[in-house]
Amino acid sequence: MTRVAALRWREGLELLDQRRLPKTERWIRVASAAQAVELIKCLAVRGAPAIGLAAAYALTVEAGRNPRLAHLRRCASRLASARPTAKNLARAVNDVLQELEDAREDERALVALATARRLHAADAAACLAIGRHGALLFPGDAISLLTICNAGALATGGIGTALGIVRTLHAEGRLARLFACETRPVLQGARLTTWEMLADDIPVTLLPDSAAAGLLTSDAVAGVVVGADRIAADGAVANKVGTHALAATAFHYGVRFVVAAPTTTFDLDCPNGAAIPIEQRASAEVELIAGHRVAPAGVAIYNPAFDVTPPDLISAIVSERGVAMPVTATTIREVAW
Amino acid sequence: MTRVAALRWREGLELLDQRRLPKTERWIRVASAAQAVELIKCLAVRGAPAIGLAAAYALTVEAGRNPRLAHLRRCASRLASARPTAKNLARAVNDVLQELEDAREDERALVALATARRLHAADAAACLAIGRHGALLFPGDAISLLTICNAGALATGGIGTALGIVRTLHAEGRLARLFACETRPVLQGARLTTWEMLADDIPVTLLPDSAAAGLLTSDAVAGVVVGADRIAADGAVANKVGTHALAATAFHYGVRFVVAAPTTTFDLDCPNGAAIPIEQRASAEVELIAGHRVAPAGVAIYNPAFDVTPPDLISAIVSERGVAMPVTATTIREVAW
Repeated sequence: MTRVAALRWREGLELLDQRRLPKTERWIRVASAAQAVELIKCLAVRGAPAIGLAAAYALTVEAGRNPRLAHLRRCASRLASARPTAKNLARAVNDVLQELEDAREDERALVALATARRLHAADAAACLAIGRHGALLFPGDAISLLTICNAGALATGGIGTALGIVRTLHAEGRLARLFACETRPVLQGARLTTWEMLADDIPVTLLPDSAAAGLLTSDAVAGVVVGADRIAADGAVANKVGTHALAATAFHYGVRFVVAAPTTTFDLDCPNGAAIPIEQRASAEVELIAGHRVAPAGVAIYNPAFDVTPPDLISAIVSERGVAMPVTATTIREVAW
Repeated sequence: MTRVAALRWREGLELLDQRRLPKTERWIRVASAAQAVELIKCLAVRGAPAIGLAAAYALTVEAGRNPRLAHLRRCASRLASARPTAKNLARAVNDVLQELEDAREDERALVALATARRLHAADAAACLAIGRHGALLFPGDAISLLTICNAGALATGGIGTALGIVRTLHAEGRLARLFACETRPVLQGARLTTWEMLADDIPVTLLPDSAAAGLLTSDAVAGVVVGADRIAADGAVANKVGTHALAATAFHYGVRFVVAAPTTTFDLDCPNGAAIPIEQRASAEVELIAGHRVAPAGVAIYNPAFDVTPPDLISAIVSERGVAMPVTATTIREVAW
């Protein structure tokens, strides 16, 4: 259902360099876990499920280079802590490491690859199921939706989570248009979501993040669909910064607000939003755009990568297991595994 | 109370070219109304009170070149329609034109200059009064405020409206910090508000527009202060796009949301927000940043320059005449002239 992919295995791990999109499609061959850590940190690959899969394959690369457990444990630890917020990253690394711990040294490379491929296939299947469940939340025809950041094929191992819902509606002939917030500071919406929608011939309109309220107060959109980087036991959702304000505005105007994420994003050990670590990123992301200075040198910058939307602002959370609606600790448990 | 100005009269009109800030301070000599229209359209000068004053002085320039009424009426009409949303623009032009209609042809240049100077002085005085009234809404010490766009000295003929409140609190020793939303797409917050705060040694932190919710849900700010481009009779406020979402989020979390504008911004003939014309601006503002393409060529773009915040989301509206709180048609009438 899509021509787009974030990563692939061709006798080795290759990542589509998302920093260069939409201008250039360049695949990077990943030679080590250390390189993968840097590529994850600099957002060459991003999106909670996709960085989990990239790390799983990167550990596979290392298992081929040096199958000793002490080495693989060190690599796993570095990969898992490349970015702090997405639950999927640590979980995918841990899944591969567990299999490696149980495997014979000379079989570890094959075991790692089989595990990474299984996680990849599971994520692709989860995206399809999320798309089916989520599309049911938007009955009728000519549905337009609003999204922020990129929760699509570039962020997952399949058709995407929020954009999985969009693609499913499109495949059903029921999508009018996706409105994509540009998503400052890294512009994942402007650079990535528009690109992947155009690649699949899905109608898309780009807007500044700040212009979303104008759509939420008219009949322009039937709802908001977003991905997630971590979902706490109470249903609080960490996602790209800007999600929280969209949710508050949608709530005020009675517009449906839907979070879509595979079970690998849920963290039932995390009681609530306050317990989710939020990554603060470099000032340069805000001060400079494509190397061009847009703010005075030396000004103080507040640049959190994520925010936390409380469960009372969320209409529904969709996983491959089903739909939590209303969002409560009980419904979250039901869709979290 | 500030070292910053948007425009000045030095035997002719000069505008600080805000397109080049914060990198370069370049003053442009304005030789005609047609040039002023272009400079207003391309945002070399912006901010509702400032474009009104720029147009008033531009008409003065024309009165010196050609004092015939038919010519001056044509210039006035073009200046007044350079941008549609700010009420101040048409009002200032009309104020000067009225005086010109009543003046002898050989005195029109002097009459125009006297009128423009009177409007300029009145705006400076209004900013001071707005600062005093607005500061009373934030009692206590170590007040931090959040703003969007630039409602400062660069947007007015004085210390600013929203930033007039900030400067007043700073002068009283009660300001901890201003948080400035970068204000996509034209980045008035990143480029202008930070620059003018740093020029006056006022502590400022820059953030992406989408990160504001994180401040509104903590104790980081005591309130939000914004300017306005037009205020309808029911208290609906047209202001820079992004204002509405800030207001909705602030409302949800019980954070004080204050609009500051001189009486020249009020339009009691405009019954409500739906009657305010909202300028749609060019796609290039969103697609390109400093000439660098950040979105695929040909993607559809939604780029309204303003949005309309309904009165129920606004805690108070401050003019030089006082404070409308709560915001109702009755309290608006009391502060509107």
